[in-house]
Amino acid sequence: MTGKVFFSVTMSLDGFIAPGSLGELMGQQWMELQQWVFSQRFFRENLKLGEGGEEGRDNDIVRETHLRTGACVMGKRMFDAGEQMWPEEAPFHTPVFVVTHSKRDPWQRPGGTTFHFVNDGIESALRQAREAAGDRDVRIAGGGATILQYLNAGLVDEFTIALSPVLFGSGIRLFEGVDASRVALEQIRSEPTQRVTHLTYAVRER
Amino acid sequence: MTGKVFFSVTMSLDGFIAPGSLGELMGQQWMELQQWVFSQRFFRENLKLGEGGEEGRDNDIVRETHLRTGACVMGKRMFDAGEQMWPEEAPFHTPVFVVTHSKRDPWQRPGGTTFHFVNDGIESALRQAREAAGDRDVRIAGGGATILQYLNAGLVDEFTIALSPVLFGSGIRLFEGVDASRVALEQIRSEPTQRVTHLTYAVRER
Repeated sequence: MTGKVFFSVTMSLDGFIAPGSLGELMGQQWMELQQWVFSQRFFRENLKLGEGGEEGRDNDIVRETHLRTGACVMGKRMFDAGEQMWPEEAPFHTPVFVVTHSKRDPWQRPGGTTFHFVNDGIESALRQAREAAGDRDVRIAGGGATILQYLNAGLVDEFTIALSPVLFGSGIRLFEGVDASRVALEQIRSEPTQRVTHLTYAVRER
Repeated sequence: MTGKVFFSVTMSLDGFIAPGSLGELMGQQWMELQQWVFSQRFFRENLKLGEGGEEGRDNDIVRETHLRTGACVMGKRMFDAGEQMWPEEAPFHTPVFVVTHSKRDPWQRPGGTTFHFVNDGIESALRQAREAAGDRDVRIAGGGATILQYLNAGLVDEFTIALSPVLFGSGIRLFEGVDASRVALEQIRSEPTQRVTHLTYAVRER
């Protein structure tokens, strides 16, 4: 019995997951996009942002996503940005396999996160992550380009999008460059909360 | 008491409402996108496609959208395409105000649809549609460019998207060119059915 390979992101109604620039307007929209998660108790505790936060269904979903994850895969750009931003106790608490050309020894953080640097491609990183995850799931953590590589390669079983009621107009699109001739979807869950709609799709080959 | 101004479209998960070309793949994806509505009893009856069809919640939603509509506004391109395709008894059954530079007398169809050709802009077309609609709502019927003109001008009160589990990869994006510095949204309803998720947003000014 092995786990699933999934990703989970917050997307604007017009399809963006991140701003293209960090101007004032985009900063505001980025906050609006992520507002639903920033305000959750589990998220705040996990990033050591302090006590408090909401405890409703959105919080349960953030926690469930964390608990199902036995290992993560991420791209080099997400790692490079995160390395500057994560607290010392990085928020993954699992092995994390970083797809990169840089050679580097495993980097162990307090709290159970160890970063492994994989130099031989996305399939190798996923194989190692599956093994580390055991019967839990593997999360393709990001960024967008890495998620799309896995999706187009047919290596994602399902994914969840928190669809946020905000329009970006420009930025980084989640599905830019998707191979629509290959990826078919089935809506398997759709759960509205006060702030967003949590959409879950299974990926099928066409 | 006047009605609301709304639009209602089916959108792919990656933000497209129509194919950019009519190749084989796009034809298939277009059918997948629209499948949820093509199979509904109300839709089939209204377009004289024959008896039968589904009668669940999706069908109710198609019917409710039709019944709330007291007048429509559409762009010239949608009218030109539709003129070739609609049955003699056009499927609107309300006054329809077509924003166009072409001068033409009103065109009355059996079943209550009369097309009026408006040459002095989107605000004039909306004003005439509001008057014709009485206390029912005005639907900005399409196409995408016309919907976006009204949205960016702050003239839309709310809209509904049937979010369909299909990826297009290319085509005509609903929100291409949206003025994100002006349009803020509030999620007011989100209702999943077997086939799609019906999302309703109120439009607020930033």
